[in-house]
Amino acid sequence: MISRLTIRRLLERHHVGCQALAIRSMQSQHSSHREWNKQQQQQHTRHKHQALATLAGFGAGVALWLKYNHQEAAAASLESEDNESIGKYGARRKGLPEYNLDDVSKHGTMQDRVWVSYRHGVYDITDFIAEHPGGDKILMGAGGSVEPFWTLYAVHKNDHVLDMFEKYRIGNLAADDVGASVKNMSDPYGNEPRRHIALKPSSKKPFNAEPPLALLVDSLITPNELFYVRNHLPVPEVDASTYELEVCDEELQKEKVFTLKDLKKYPKHTVTATIMCAGNRRSEMTQVKPVKGLSWGQAAIGNATWSGARLCDVLRDLGITDGKTDALHIQFEGLDTDPAHMPYGASIPIEKALDPHGDVILAYEMNGEPIPRDHGYPIRVIVPGVVGARNVKWLGRIVVSKDESDSHWQQNDYKGFAPSVDWDTVDFKKSPAIQELPVISAICEPLEGQTVGVKNGKVNVKGYAWSGGGRKIVRVDVSSDGGKNWQAADVLECDGARHPQAWGWSIWKAEIPVPKSKLEAQLCAKAVDSQYNTQPENFENIWNLRGVLANAYHRVNIKLAR
Amino acid sequence: MISRLTIRRLLERHHVGCQALAIRSMQSQHSSHREWNKQQQQQHTRHKHQALATLAGFGAGVALWLKYNHQEAAAASLESEDNESIGKYGARRKGLPEYNLDDVSKHGTMQDRVWVSYRHGVYDITDFIAEHPGGDKILMGAGGSVEPFWTLYAVHKNDHVLDMFEKYRIGNLAADDVGASVKNMSDPYGNEPRRHIALKPSSKKPFNAEPPLALLVDSLITPNELFYVRNHLPVPEVDASTYELEVCDEELQKEKVFTLKDLKKYPKHTVTATIMCAGNRRSEMTQVKPVKGLSWGQAAIGNATWSGARLCDVLRDLGITDGKTDALHIQFEGLDTDPAHMPYGASIPIEKALDPHGDVILAYEMNGEPIPRDHGYPIRVIVPGVVGARNVKWLGRIVVSKDESDSHWQQNDYKGFAPSVDWDTVDFKKSPAIQELPVISAICEPLEGQTVGVKNGKVNVKGYAWSGGGRKIVRVDVSSDGGKNWQAADVLECDGARHPQAWGWSIWKAEIPVPKSKLEAQLCAKAVDSQYNTQPENFENIWNLRGVLANAYHRVNIKLAR
Repeated sequence: MISRLTIRRLLERHHVGCQALAIRSMQSQHSSHREWNKQQQQQHTRHKHQALATLAGFGAGVALWLKYNHQEAAAASLESEDNESIGKYGARRKGLPEYNLDDVSKHGTMQDRVWVSYRHGVYDITDFIAEHPGGDKILMGAGGSVEPFWTLYAVHKNDHVLDMFEKYRIGNLAADDVGASVKNMSDPYGNEPRRHIALKPSSKKPFNAEPPLALLVDSLITPNELFYVRNHLPVPEVDASTYELEVCDEELQKEKVFTLKDLKKYPKHTVTATIMCAGNRRSEMTQVKPVKGLSWGQAAIGNATWSGARLCDVLRDLGITDGKTDALHIQFEGLDTDPAHMPYGASIPIEKALDPHGDVILAYEMNGEPIPRDHGYPIRVIVPGVVGARNVKWLGRIVVSKDESDSHWQQNDYKGFAPSVDWDTVDFKKSPAIQELPVISAICEPLEGQTVGVKNGKVNVKGYAWSGGGRKIVRVDVSSDGGKNWQAADVLECDGARHPQAWGWSIWKAEIPVPKSKLEAQLCAKAVDSQYNTQPENFENIWNLRGVLANAYHRVNIKLAR
Repeated sequence: MISRLTIRRLLERHHVGCQALAIRSMQSQHSSHREWNKQQQQQHTRHKHQALATLAGFGAGVALWLKYNHQEAAAASLESEDNESIGKYGARRKGLPEYNLDDVSKHGTMQDRVWVSYRHGVYDITDFIAEHPGGDKILMGAGGSVEPFWTLYAVHKNDHVLDMFEKYRIGNLAADDVGASVKNMSDPYGNEPRRHIALKPSSKKPFNAEPPLALLVDSLITPNELFYVRNHLPVPEVDASTYELEVCDEELQKEKVFTLKDLKKYPKHTVTATIMCAGNRRSEMTQVKPVKGLSWGQAAIGNATWSGARLCDVLRDLGITDGKTDALHIQFEGLDTDPAHMPYGASIPIEKALDPHGDVILAYEMNGEPIPRDHGYPIRVIVPGVVGARNVKWLGRIVVSKDESDSHWQQNDYKGFAPSVDWDTVDFKKSPAIQELPVISAICEPLEGQTVGVKNGKVNVKGYAWSGGGRKIVRVDVSSDGGKNWQAADVLECDGARHPQAWGWSIWKAEIPVPKSKLEAQLCAKAVDSQYNTQPENFENIWNLRGVLANAYHRVNIKLAR
């Protein structure tokens, strides 16, 4: 099987224009792509616009999914797959004009007005586009059917989305063309890895899941099988023997392709680093006011030992060193792609990548084993201290650039806003992309609502604490009276943790007195890091529309058994 | 005049044993000290104990001052100088045995019991020493008079201290010896620089003062004359033409002495950096529960442009570079000394010093002028992003070491603790020395209690925001209803501020609607930095016994004129 990277390159090179684009049908194609790479260097900064132009022309389908994917429609993700009311949407409606797919494909730009089809329906979504939080990304698949997208993002198949969608209905699709766009298209999620039964999914397609909180802090190192999974797209199947990582510098016009074997020739660098999803603990923030996003508990975080080549060593071989480049960002692209074959993408500031103490590695091992498929096999970039979203899995390409990644996830997602900003007023350009995460902690034992035995007037409490940016945890305070009185917990840190390279979390324990003769107690935890930053008390004032950065005190209400 | 550095060296070299030690009387002495330096390298790690042994023998006076200096006895500092009830303390008391200074000097160690004299009184303070929060530092001047110390630290002359002190009274001092210890001793504060009349002192000896809040944010750069002053000791008078900076590496047994001219040969490096006292905004924290420390308002912070030699360039010339040393800390000693001639001292982790992007400089200019005496003339080490206490003024010595500075200010001061820790339970070893400061902000206009004109339903609010560790301010939220609703302010940042080298503060402005028809409002401000850390809501849960790290939301109550 050829790699997804090659498929993506082929697609871009050939400006593939087939109507019912099916990934599997492409897998028999093969071609050298070296000569293409040279053009690609110049083309990369125009990547998005090139892709827009290309895709708008062949109509691979509309990208309404983008809106709903990045909002993640928390409520809908699991249930929607079996939504029984779907049949009523996209049904043939009397009295509307009839169009065929060729008609639809003529409406692929704003100038021509943007049309899409869904089942028996034709829709003019031009007026919706202006309101689209993700901007003109929605144009990517204009002029075709949305069905290939919705196969990938089952989340769309819920009444809320379909009700809204139906308002833009302008006609019926010719009977012969109905279903043409999904003919021969296999389930993109048909080849997902097997997962541990303990992982609790908040979304199945794409797969997102966290382990049970009670198992999370059994040891400083999180077992691979229990490490939370946050995928944005289907897991690509990558053949390590043909895997290639492309590294290029936009300005210097240099590029180099590395096989897995090439990467393993660099000194093997090992770091113990915690990776956390920006949305960890979102379910608590949601209680203040709903947010858009997967409803993560407190376990969208894990701590592992990662081994691989240091990115700064690899970049040095391209002549890219501190002070010898005008670039400002390092962009990463995954081999996981959306229906328009645009890869998952993110970037980090170049300071982090070039700093030998930044410990950014192109990791091929997780806890001493080849990185599991769900975590980025064969290569995941590990950016210690930085939000999970920049630790790009299935790494396919690195671009040294003056610009941030133009990906949706860098530009229009994973950013923090003031509580007053809502979807009607948000301007994603006004906030910086989340990189280093703030200090956080959580209580893992006991669990919310649990009945806990009181021994000698005390209960046992256990949890984790972590801070981004290599800041070390210097103290965890625990309270059993809702935050009136505090006691310092015993903190177990990762070996050799030293600011500003304390990348791994700490696990803490406390035996804490509970109020006498009471049958209930509210436990609270808050951590202090080596910059003496601490957590905010409540969620009200850090609430944000995406529900990220949910690092207020963790409060757990328990019942006391005496 | 010879430099203070030389005086200190002479004192240490000669194990000076004069009873009534007067700094000025030493200033005519002069000697080469090169041969001494070699011994000093080995001796440095035993610095404290050597000094204790030396000083205990000659009895320069007791060090009760240390306890009160590091607690800074907030309430007492200004008023105490004119305390009229002092006369009753240390008066001759009938029925007590009589001792002379020679008797007292035989009690300079714990084994012999520790005696001190004050005016006509002799005291056995042995049992007090065990309770002393500063540990055995109090032994430094055992076996002599406390008067030379109290001349320096007028704070002791208040009823609270003297009442406690009088309890340890054991005898009367022989009439001939009364006053001998302060004979010929001039006022150590007799040669302080002139200060701008706008600076409001919270302590005059040593001098500590902040500018009026309303002037603080007139510009991004704080004028030298209005920059807050935080001195721990008298300002030394240093002659730039004879100034010498000693740099040594304990392990490598290397040392080098630099004149000011030598330092100016290095490339001139300029950084704009904010310096803040760890106790800034302490007066707000005190409202929750009293703390020990100078009662700073919100203006113990300033932002200046500093120029000098990079510390990493200087260290490189001694062969000390990243990865080529086992040292972990860089210690700094000032030329300002206590009555036992121990210098002010502090240290920083070596990572910060050796990182070329850490921007640590040996600064000889502040805002384009030679550094003023109050700010460290001729050399102050500027450690951007790090608490003021480590930005050592009048820099006399740098030691590359495996150990932190053993100074009082590094070990037993400038540390954070949980709210539950009080002076009875504190163990200073349990917290790390404050280095990088957490995110903070303050409202500078309007002031607390001020009547403010409402225009179009709005009021103008202005302030500063800053975060340590080079974290950039990415947002400031302002509220006019006590924190229920928030509006993002307009933020003006220093040129070129980029995480993690955003060393300078930001000034922010907002025109914010106030509740209709109300005559009062509570303004609040909170900042978010580029690590997305934000401020805690209230002081209750960050209260600490020293009143440091007071970075809760700033709340200002105003009256509205309509």
